[in-house]
Amino acid sequence: MAYLHRTHCCGELRTEQVGERVRLNGWVHNRRDLGGVIFLDVRDRSGIVQVVCNPEFSEEAADLADKLRNEYVVAIEGEVVERDPDTVNPNLPTGKIEVRATTIQLLSRAKTPPFSINQPNADVDETVRLKYRYLDLRRDAMQRTFKIRHKATQVIRRFLDAHGYLELETPMLTRSTPEGARDYLVPSRIHEGAFYALPQSPQLFKQLLMVSGFERYYQIVRCFRDEDLRADRQPEFTQLDIETSFLPPEALQSEMEEMISDIFRETIGYHVPTPFPRLTYQEAMDRYGTDKPDLRFGLELCDVTHIVKDSQFKVFAGAVQSGGQVKGINAKGCADFSRKDIDVLTDYLKPYGAKGLAWIAVKDSGMTGPIVKFFSEEERRRLADALEAETGDLLLFVADQADVVAESLGQLRLKLARDLDLIPEDTYAFAWITDFPLFTYDEEEGRYQAVHHPFTLPVEEDIEKLTTDPASVRAQAYDMVCNGYEIGGGSMRIYQRDVQEKMFAALGFTEEEAKRRFGFLLEAFEYGTPPHGGIAFGLDRIVMLLAKRHNLRDVIAFPKTQSASCLMTEAPGPVDDKQLEELHISVVPSTPFDD
Amino acid sequence: MAYLHRTHCCGELRTEQVGERVRLNGWVHNRRDLGGVIFLDVRDRSGIVQVVCNPEFSEEAADLADKLRNEYVVAIEGEVVERDPDTVNPNLPTGKIEVRATTIQLLSRAKTPPFSINQPNADVDETVRLKYRYLDLRRDAMQRTFKIRHKATQVIRRFLDAHGYLELETPMLTRSTPEGARDYLVPSRIHEGAFYALPQSPQLFKQLLMVSGFERYYQIVRCFRDEDLRADRQPEFTQLDIETSFLPPEALQSEMEEMISDIFRETIGYHVPTPFPRLTYQEAMDRYGTDKPDLRFGLELCDVTHIVKDSQFKVFAGAVQSGGQVKGINAKGCADFSRKDIDVLTDYLKPYGAKGLAWIAVKDSGMTGPIVKFFSEEERRRLADALEAETGDLLLFVADQADVVAESLGQLRLKLARDLDLIPEDTYAFAWITDFPLFTYDEEEGRYQAVHHPFTLPVEEDIEKLTTDPASVRAQAYDMVCNGYEIGGGSMRIYQRDVQEKMFAALGFTEEEAKRRFGFLLEAFEYGTPPHGGIAFGLDRIVMLLAKRHNLRDVIAFPKTQSASCLMTEAPGPVDDKQLEELHISVVPSTPFDD
Repeated sequence: MAYLHRTHCCGELRTEQVGERVRLNGWVHNRRDLGGVIFLDVRDRSGIVQVVCNPEFSEEAADLADKLRNEYVVAIEGEVVERDPDTVNPNLPTGKIEVRATTIQLLSRAKTPPFSINQPNADVDETVRLKYRYLDLRRDAMQRTFKIRHKATQVIRRFLDAHGYLELETPMLTRSTPEGARDYLVPSRIHEGAFYALPQSPQLFKQLLMVSGFERYYQIVRCFRDEDLRADRQPEFTQLDIETSFLPPEALQSEMEEMISDIFRETIGYHVPTPFPRLTYQEAMDRYGTDKPDLRFGLELCDVTHIVKDSQFKVFAGAVQSGGQVKGINAKGCADFSRKDIDVLTDYLKPYGAKGLAWIAVKDSGMTGPIVKFFSEEERRRLADALEAETGDLLLFVADQADVVAESLGQLRLKLARDLDLIPEDTYAFAWITDFPLFTYDEEEGRYQAVHHPFTLPVEEDIEKLTTDPASVRAQAYDMVCNGYEIGGGSMRIYQRDVQEKMFAALGFTEEEAKRRFGFLLEAFEYGTPPHGGIAFGLDRIVMLLAKRHNLRDVIAFPKTQSASCLMTEAPGPVDDKQLEELHISVVPSTPFDD
Repeated sequence: MAYLHRTHCCGELRTEQVGERVRLNGWVHNRRDLGGVIFLDVRDRSGIVQVVCNPEFSEEAADLADKLRNEYVVAIEGEVVERDPDTVNPNLPTGKIEVRATTIQLLSRAKTPPFSINQPNADVDETVRLKYRYLDLRRDAMQRTFKIRHKATQVIRRFLDAHGYLELETPMLTRSTPEGARDYLVPSRIHEGAFYALPQSPQLFKQLLMVSGFERYYQIVRCFRDEDLRADRQPEFTQLDIETSFLPPEALQSEMEEMISDIFRETIGYHVPTPFPRLTYQEAMDRYGTDKPDLRFGLELCDVTHIVKDSQFKVFAGAVQSGGQVKGINAKGCADFSRKDIDVLTDYLKPYGAKGLAWIAVKDSGMTGPIVKFFSEEERRRLADALEAETGDLLLFVADQADVVAESLGQLRLKLARDLDLIPEDTYAFAWITDFPLFTYDEEEGRYQAVHHPFTLPVEEDIEKLTTDPASVRAQAYDMVCNGYEIGGGSMRIYQRDVQEKMFAALGFTEEEAKRRFGFLLEAFEYGTPPHGGIAFGLDRIVMLLAKRHNLRDVIAFPKTQSASCLMTEAPGPVDDKQLEELHISVVPSTPFDD
């Protein structure tokens, strides 16, 4: 159908266009009939404009307007006129004008949508939103989010291009080298019984690009992990992947700070100060109980082990004696918390392993609470000093093994901050976390695992401990955190075959296994490998922060549910037997006894 | 190892730096020992510089230099000095200076590479290049190619951003909707017996983004086809994918011309004139025998059916009588081709179905050749006129069904152009091919198939013929061609459910089948769908043209072979039984009787 093509976008009309004949294309956002005169809000990507369909201007247009419903697609011709002063809409950029329709064409009808597009705060069930994603994406908040996402990617690309990075593509059909998360597999038709894997990250390829001498690489790339999904995970996600050669980590970090600062300034006008604060892993764990601390507020953890280790309070002293520790948080001004309030907090901590939450309220009359009596004057004074306690404060303590103390008090810190409204919502607090341990011991598998990945370079002077004392080896690794999220993680990489072999050995790989899985990398390292390192950012997570959304699904155009399904296309779905036959595979139904 | 970090890149040193102490990081590109003084060519991404290691400046550095070999990675400190006038190397941008090494650090050793990196024209077996891809990519030609690729993608993104396109990402784990090529499948762990498919293109998603009101979308995106690979195909390839709403096709085409013009100007300084010539599909087939003509040279096909249909030459007359045609090409100045030369051409055409190649040589004495005697004076004169024959020309004819004539003469045209050196190598000839038929009849399956895809909008006035006369329906489709390649293909899309349903019916889908496979699209079309259309470009192919490479494998960093393998990582490969078990699949070995 040859329809009237737009001369303008709806949202761009202003008083400057008064008197002009314009053509618009868009959706009927809203429709009101005021005594035979029909007012349409017509919407396109640029915004909304009011169109008046009055039989006095055009009988035909008014007749058609009468048949229009919300979300119909129309082409409109008409004249831009100034609105009467008393009908000006100050909330709309186009609110001073309206368009008097002389011609209306109906391009496409619409059934009544399952939820309204024009009510910004409509509370719609997420499964309905996901099934009708194409309608959900019409909503203003979603349009804004994806404009931010677009803008962020453009800023990233411009920044990296200007800094000499080359955008290079790595394969999606790769080799399965399972370590950490599960691979998504792709059966091969040509090679019977062989499988490709979708990349969990382009880690090996970007390192090989460094071996190739490209020196500065970046890619905004899809990655895949077949994991059980938590609320903030997706089976496919987008990574900003970066690798450099011959660049000291401090220089890389400073470039990345500058990039992040550009992104936040250019997409949402937020000023990110640089350089970012730096915390060692140990410091972050000590002060915040986590390696991705939310630094928008204080409420730090305070180690009181040395004060209470010899106290009469058996719970504290006992925890210390069995190798644990005692730490506290000062909930400022919460001395009036009821026993019930504290019970709620205690329950909140149970999933994190804390067996209890001890408390001391600081009142005018001094310290009160069931455990106060166990402490000497001296101990009480030192506790107050350590926690900077003042009248009106509530001191909360957990005594346990270090990891339990960290996790439970770290979570308590976040909960208190939310409950007490301590988090400045329009602030972004960035930091680098450095000096990670290289390994963590996996009790279940009885072996060491890489904290980051098996290609992370140990701190130079720790390399000899790879074989003798893996637990004490520090990694040349760094994470970027913001508001309690890890948004990027990177490291210097091993670039010498012998070190890489020691690393594999420390991880419990036999020589044969290392060679079978990573032989091509080990071989590449023998042909002149530059010192190199890089970083990878979670783009979805960054966009989530920029757009102030609380869910990764809101920043991915067509996301998957927690069972890795697409509710709109119903993927994954059944396939023809012929397809499976060509791929030399068959489905093996699990028996009821399987688990 | 704390090594000496670069102050400069090798390729950027000039006489301006003479007298400065510099630090360089890079690879030993070449090494010569001239009587105890060692000359190193040191290479990094930016280029090459000569480093002189003379025991007079530093005994230590000269000693170490003695142990260096090609492709070792080094850090060098030294002073930039002017070369003696007689040792200036005019072929090197850094050729007027050299660096006197005072310190050399060996960062990484290298075995002797399987092929030399520093000999640009070394003829290396491609399987060796692919196995050691990380070394192949070090070679100058490859580095240049990927810099061009990077530059092209940046130009594309800037252009599209400036023109209001949003970069939006579509899923990689999608639903299998087989039509045309085979899907790559991904078994689901969570949904037993269900599979994702990797996208052959984001076609449906980009159309849904138009339903969502984004109006202008682009993405540089990986696509997958599990086809038997020809020399110029890859299982995964990169597409520049574009879709617009409310935009007439001519406006889209003109934007795309501008974009292509920008790409060629900014990457290789080539001026592409716009607007591009336009040829209808029929015109392209008539004049060039193909819908992707190489327009860098003439040598057009000429239809002589009307001249020879009643001639005495039975082969010609008979072909016409059985519904075929007779067409010719004028090979200018080839009248002296020997019988053997012509036999070679005849053999060349056999794979394309031509049963013979008739010829007439135009000599001083007039037309000669075995078939001349069958034609009347009048017929000879008209043939000469039609083919613009002059003394010295060789007229070549094929008589057969139209498709055989087109393919064989189209191929003959290309071969003659190559043999006669008629192709200006440094020229790019672009054109649009328009007015494609909507369907092609698949004899084997006994049904119509979409020439482009099932979402292509028919020409308005042909829509009613969808059910009555599908063969005559024209598509609102357009391909961009360059130098004999299709580099882009697009169309306006169907945006009304009833038209889409008619289209599916014409393709032989039952209503149930259409709904099962594309139900979500049909449903989306019911909620207000804008008129829309788009295009997709083969990015790999465009880069191939820009970089003047003759093989897609040369413009993909880590390509697959024709059996869809990666020789470097040995993907696809075996996986653990446990992985398959979790995915509820097993491998079914094909029996020897299978085919």
